[in-house]
Parts: sequence; C-alpha cells; structure tokens
Amino acid sequence: MKLVSYSVDGRPTYGAVVGEAVVEIPPLRPGLPATLKGALRLGVEAIAEALAGAADAGGPAFDDLDLLPVVPDPGKVICAGVNYADHRSETGRQQADYPTLFVRFADSQVGHEHPVAVPDVSTALDYEGELAVVIGQPAYKVPAGEALTHIAGYACFDDFTVRDFQRHSSQFTPGKNFIGVGSFGPWLVTADEIADVEALHLETRVNGETRQSAQVSDMIFSIPELIAYVTTFTRLDTGDVVVTGTPGGVGFFRDPPLLLRSGDVVEVEIDHVGLLRTPIA
Amino acid sequence: MKLVSYSVDGRPTYGAVVGEAVVEIPPLRPGLPATLKGALRLGVEAIAEALAGAADAGGPAFDDLDLLPVVPDPGKVICAGVNYADHRSETGRQQADYPTLFVRFADSQVGHEHPVAVPDVSTALDYEGELAVVIGQPAYKVPAGEALTHIAGYACFDDFTVRDFQRHSSQFTPGKNFIGVGSFGPWLVTADEIADVEALHLETRVNGETRQSAQVSDMIFSIPELIAYVTTFTRLDTGDVVVTGTPGGVGFFRDPPLLLRSGDVVEVEIDHVGLLRTPIA
Repeated sequence: MKLVSYSVDGRPTYGAVVGEAVVEIPPLRPGLPATLKGALRLGVEAIAEALAGAADAGGPAFDDLDLLPVVPDPGKVICAGVNYADHRSETGRQQADYPTLFVRFADSQVGHEHPVAVPDVSTALDYEGELAVVIGQPAYKVPAGEALTHIAGYACFDDFTVRDFQRHSSQFTPGKNFIGVGSFGPWLVTADEIADVEALHLETRVNGETRQSAQVSDMIFSIPELIAYVTTFTRLDTGDVVVTGTPGGVGFFRDPPLLLRSGDVVEVEIDHVGLLRTPIA
Repeated sequence: MKLVSYSVDGRPTYGAVVGEAVVEIPPLRPGLPATLKGALRLGVEAIAEALAGAADAGGPAFDDLDLLPVVPDPGKVICAGVNYADHRSETGRQQADYPTLFVRFADSQVGHEHPVAVPDVSTALDYEGELAVVIGQPAYKVPAGEALTHIAGYACFDDFTVRDFQRHSSQFTPGKNFIGVGSFGPWLVTADEIADVEALHLETRVNGETRQSAQVSDMIFSIPELIAYVTTFTRLDTGDVVVTGTPGGVGFFRDPPLLLRSGDVVEVEIDHVGLLRTPIA
C-alpha cells in the first residue's frame, strides 16, 4: 500500500493511493483513528483490511491533494548524518565508530510539491536526498537482527539544510530546523512492498540534472544498525521517523558550490518508494 | 507562583505550591486545561486568578507528591551547550560566534526526587546543573530586547549526560537522550517573581559537596540572546523549554574524573528558583 497524509480544507486526514485516486481511510469504518500515526498503531494489516472491505470509494485524484508530510506529527525524527562514504569524504569529516545523529522537529517538514523557501537570513540552502524509515511497532533495545520487523514502511525525504546555520557551531540543530525547510513524501510505501531495502537506488535531481545517485547498500551504518543503536538510548514509537543519511553530491561541497535558488525544483526519487518533488520559493 | 506537574494514581495534573501544600488547579474552575502547558496558554495571570478565587483548598503536602518534570509534554526542548566560559575551557572546545544547540526529547526527563539510573551500557554518567526557561507566549523571530516577555518562568534542570555516548560522534544527541536520564524540577517559578534573572546564582552539589557554582550573568550567550537566535529558525511554543547551559565543574573533566555512581545524590540549586534533587540508582 501507498499511504498519504493530506489536508482537506485545513482538516488533516490520510488515505491510500489506489490507481490515480486516493481513498480516505477514517470514514471507511467506525473506530478508525483520525491520523496515519494512529492507524499505524493498529497495524498496516488493519488498514489493508479496512480498505479491502470498502466499496470502490471513488476518492479525490492524487494530483489534486494538498499533501502533508507523510507523518505530520511524529514524536521523534532522528536523522543520521554523514552515513555514506562519499558524502563523508566530501565533508572532510572523520570516520566514526558510531552513527552521527541529529534531531529535526516535526514542523521543519512539508509535504510533496510544497514549496521550500530560501530563509531570508541565509543564501546557503542545500538539498540532501534521503530514505526515511517510519516505525510501526515501538522499538526499544532492539537488536539489529530484529530491527526490520519494527518498520511500517519507507518514504523519500529531502533533509534540506541551511549550510551556514549548520556550521555556526559543532551541532547541526539550527541548520536542520528552519520551519518548513525539509520535505517528506509523497507517501509511505508499506514494508511488505519492499523485498530488499538494501537494493534500492536513490537519486536526487535539481532541475532535472542528477546530483546524487547511490544504492541504499552504500550506507556506512545499515538501517538495522541505525535502529539498534538508536534504541540503545531511546524508544522509537509508532510514527517516529529515522532518516538514514544523504550520499555524496550535495551542492555546498561542489566546486564551485551550487546552492539552491528560487525557481529550482528538487526531486528525490527512490525506486519502488516514490518521487518527492519540492519547488524552491 | 510556584507551579508543579505531578501524578495522582497515574493521572497527570498540576497545581500551585502554597506553603507546604499544593492546590490542584484543574478542579478550581470549569474549563481550566488539564495540563500545565495548557494552562500556560491561558497565561500565568489566569492561573493566579483561578487560585485567588479558590477557598483554602487544603491539598496534599508537597513532600508527598509524585512529581513529574515541570512541563511533562514540551513540544521542543532546546539546550545550549558550552555556554559558560569555564565549561567551554574545561571541554577544550573553541569559542563560537553562535550558540551551540542540541535537542532533548521529552522522555529523557524525570521530576524532582525521581531516581536517574546509570545506563547499563555506560559507566560515564555525569551531572550538568542548569537554568531552564519555560516559554509562555509563543516566540518566532523575536529580537533579544523583547525575548523576556515570552518567558512564563524558570526552573532547575539537570542535563544529565552519558559522556561516552555524547562523544560517539560530533553530535551530542545520544548522550543527551537516554530515557529518564535528565531531571527538571521541582517547579516552575513564574517570571514575575524573578526581578533580575542575571543575578541568580546556580550551584550543583554531589553528596553535599559543591561541584559547580556560577552566576547566570556568566553565560556566554544570555537568555535573550539564546531566544533571539533560536527563534530565527524555529518557533517556540507555550511550554517549550530552553535549557541554558552548564558552568564549569562537571565530573568528566576533573582530574581524576568523578563520574556518578549508584547511591549518589545530585542537587541543583538556583536561588529564588528552587532546589532539584536527584538520587542516582
């Protein structure tokens, strides 16, 4: 299934993409939660069941939706930094024995096709195409070998970064948390549709030109390793997001640097997962 | 006023400390919010009014309460690192032109008198006594000169740190986010009771021995400067917390290092604000 969060006249809801239309889930059956996070607590199977029991619901066209971030209200968004060797190398950072983790607040994300603006205090907006993992079953002190069973599904993520603010101090927090400067979409592809996540290919394009291209298997710390490490110290709950890092090829480290400008269009595409498009305002 | 969040048979609530007793706020008047964060949205004056209108309510003794973190459910907890010159110097970190900011998740805090355990994966638990600022009026792009008007009040905070995990990579996230390894209490002192926050003195004691001692005016970035910087990129909402950094004297950088062990008792005391006590389990 492909599950989307979206807004209808300001009211947040969620649905499943069926062909080119979207079937809104909460009205299908009494007692279904009002948010995708709530529904994921019931389990992907329960959503599939509700959907299967529905008559051809004839919902709105996907292209007409006002999409929200895949999970608009995650409790925790934990991001891996420098988790591909070519990106680590371009940043000049040292190899570490453990994942480099920072936090994004939920309000730093927008949905597919929503514009991201260059902040008025900066001219150094950069893209970072990434694969995001959405947690299904809560995870705490989970060994790597069991980590994949805690994943509800996958989505594309653009970990847009305000480079000058990222480098104001040793900690990345400011550069990663401008309001609405990040994108997460278009949908969640449930884990049952991804036979081998390591085999996925990720590409980031700016105005149609390929800037990043990598295999998920190129990650320094694999998805199970990231989840195992994160859950040694904190608990991941349903709807929490682990963003797995960006490959080499970001704009800031190019010679000369290629930073984003108003009018650019950034696409993050991961095969079998989706294509996330963000216009720069 | 001194406002506390606490738990009655597992039900979270909040009240005002009056003498040695606590008056529970929500039952005082229909329509009062169920949480301190909700009440702060109404404003400190509205809480004071509800309290003034109450008969002598004869609530439970403060000492008998099961205290929660001052704000148990903050949307954002943003912490300043290396914000006192003597601590910066002991860590060997360089002077920065901007605040060093990291994030704590809400579940990394406990209330006053709640034990904090040395994590089973580490032996490097350390204290960091700090002053916490709780936001009242939401703040976004607020100049330093107006920042104090957005503060609901102050509290003591022990930014307990798992030093080995803090140093696993460049980012502090893991070492600052073990579940329940941090404390925030005992209460919120409303801003009207603090004539001059810069004049406050902070002290951290371990088993009665003073380990940190500083003036709030010793901060590298003042509270208004921190709020102004934070709100250039993100929005601070009611109940959000800005933790302002720890002075020199943490255990890890002593020679020899003095890390916390089971049985230790850590106290953070800030005059006119309160005394936060944490037993180490």
